[in-house]
Amino acid sequence: MSDTPPCTFVYKADPVRGAEWRGLFAELAPEVDFRIWPDVGDPARVRFLAAWQPPADLAAYTGLELLFSVGAGIDQFDLEALPAGLPLVRMVEPGIVGGMVEYATLAVLSIHRDWQTYAAQQRCEVWRALRVRPAASRRVGVLGLGVLGRAVLAQLRGLGFPCSAWSRSQHDVEGVDCYAGDAALPGFAARCDILVCLLPLTDETRGILNARLFERLPAGAALVHAGRGPHLVQQDLLDALDSGQLARAVLDVCDPEPLPPGHPYWEHPAIMLTPHIASMTQPDSAVRAVLENLRRHRAGEPLEGLVERRRGY
Amino acid sequence: MSDTPPCTFVYKADPVRGAEWRGLFAELAPEVDFRIWPDVGDPARVRFLAAWQPPADLAAYTGLELLFSVGAGIDQFDLEALPAGLPLVRMVEPGIVGGMVEYATLAVLSIHRDWQTYAAQQRCEVWRALRVRPAASRRVGVLGLGVLGRAVLAQLRGLGFPCSAWSRSQHDVEGVDCYAGDAALPGFAARCDILVCLLPLTDETRGILNARLFERLPAGAALVHAGRGPHLVQQDLLDALDSGQLARAVLDVCDPEPLPPGHPYWEHPAIMLTPHIASMTQPDSAVRAVLENLRRHRAGEPLEGLVERRRGY
Repeated sequence: MSDTPPCTFVYKADPVRGAEWRGLFAELAPEVDFRIWPDVGDPARVRFLAAWQPPADLAAYTGLELLFSVGAGIDQFDLEALPAGLPLVRMVEPGIVGGMVEYATLAVLSIHRDWQTYAAQQRCEVWRALRVRPAASRRVGVLGLGVLGRAVLAQLRGLGFPCSAWSRSQHDVEGVDCYAGDAALPGFAARCDILVCLLPLTDETRGILNARLFERLPAGAALVHAGRGPHLVQQDLLDALDSGQLARAVLDVCDPEPLPPGHPYWEHPAIMLTPHIASMTQPDSAVRAVLENLRRHRAGEPLEGLVERRRGY
Repeated sequence: MSDTPPCTFVYKADPVRGAEWRGLFAELAPEVDFRIWPDVGDPARVRFLAAWQPPADLAAYTGLELLFSVGAGIDQFDLEALPAGLPLVRMVEPGIVGGMVEYATLAVLSIHRDWQTYAAQQRCEVWRALRVRPAASRRVGVLGLGVLGRAVLAQLRGLGFPCSAWSRSQHDVEGVDCYAGDAALPGFAARCDILVCLLPLTDETRGILNARLFERLPAGAALVHAGRGPHLVQQDLLDALDSGQLARAVLDVCDPEPLPPGHPYWEHPAIMLTPHIASMTQPDSAVRAVLENLRRHRAGEPLEGLVERRRGY
């Protein structure tokens, strides 16, 4: 009998994607005993778990070494309910990053180039050109300077938008004016013609997209929200759109999700709504990222995306 | 009396932009006698003309040395009606290039990320995520490899789309599979999940977007058309959309423009229509490009954007 326990890895999320994970594990790491929840075998033998939500009987997983989130965030986990010593790993993989770069670029360009206005004109058979404003005169600001924020900023800079960013602690990003901390938030907001939220959801960032922030934006600014629903005070957005302080919003997240029937966002002419699709874990690159972290774990190296529970991401 | 004739420059296009050109000439080239048509003074003293359409009495402009198009193309000129020896200059300026890069990127991403489907779902209060396809599996092909095509390809490559291009004569572009000539067109089309037309309008390219080409595309492909209206056989597009051979089209140009009332494009659910706004000359960068060409002209250097009349662009 071997000294090492069998390497059992359980996947607990969308089963269609789970089948793709299974195929990739079979190809790339056939030594792993890959299982899709609820077919976990003996919970005590499970060493690794990748989940959107952990199973209710997590206490039975006594040999668990790592808990992977299948998403970029871990705010869906109830941290209090998880074993204190269990390392949590956010999903950091190029598929998520690429998807967010696409979404943010698309949303910013759709605002910049009046895409929704043209769509509305088309429905009324109106052929009317709006003046094109150079990208150099449209200032974009990104809330959040993690892997996603940096990748989005690199793309937007390449399109010629003057870019700034705000985060909790000070960072330097080439060609980006970086602001840090609560005191700097109003000054940052004052130079955002388009504000893009890519923050993690924590106690500090809950409700950060509110009337006070909107008031600081230049009149007629726009919001792209691809963070988490509870970042946004929903009535404050409606008020800002109605007053004209904000001209437009593109929302990928809301609270709750799905957005309830009859919610005013559905038919608001200044809101473009997508069903939390900005960025999705791609099985191919996600499995490779997970396997790389398993290798690091075995080698005692630092994990990519390891969560600091105290700060919440 | 000076040996050199007075440098009279006439602008004949949109007068609002003309006023901006006037201010820029006053600042950057105050020695030029800048005039906005019809206030041309003595036509015989006009040495330079920037126009969308030349004046009817062009024969009276006996001292004309250069005719600048204010647009990226010169297909709006009747070449037969212009003096044979008069050099024609297309507008090549960073504002036009940047605008086209934005538009093509926006149009390709809107197709890639199902933006119009989500907009339609929103109107029906439907919250349904569609699977995100990685950019690496979405092949984009660009018809036309001029300044615009190359800039668009650079941006799309940066987003991870596998890119190919087709042009009249063979070119090499790093990271892009280049096809040339009529015989190569079907092979090029077969690998375009999204086809982007940025061709100049010539006798050879008129009607190039037709049923034969659409049949060669992969089933369910999409079209982005930011060339000229007469490139496209309009009924062939409707047929291809109705059969499902094409899934979607984003059109910035049509024939005639504006699109007539009641035309089926207006309310076709698979067509996104914009009123020829993909790219517009930006007065600031356009005037600088024109002044640089005036300097080259004085110095006897090759002009940027000089048209070869034989090939038509």
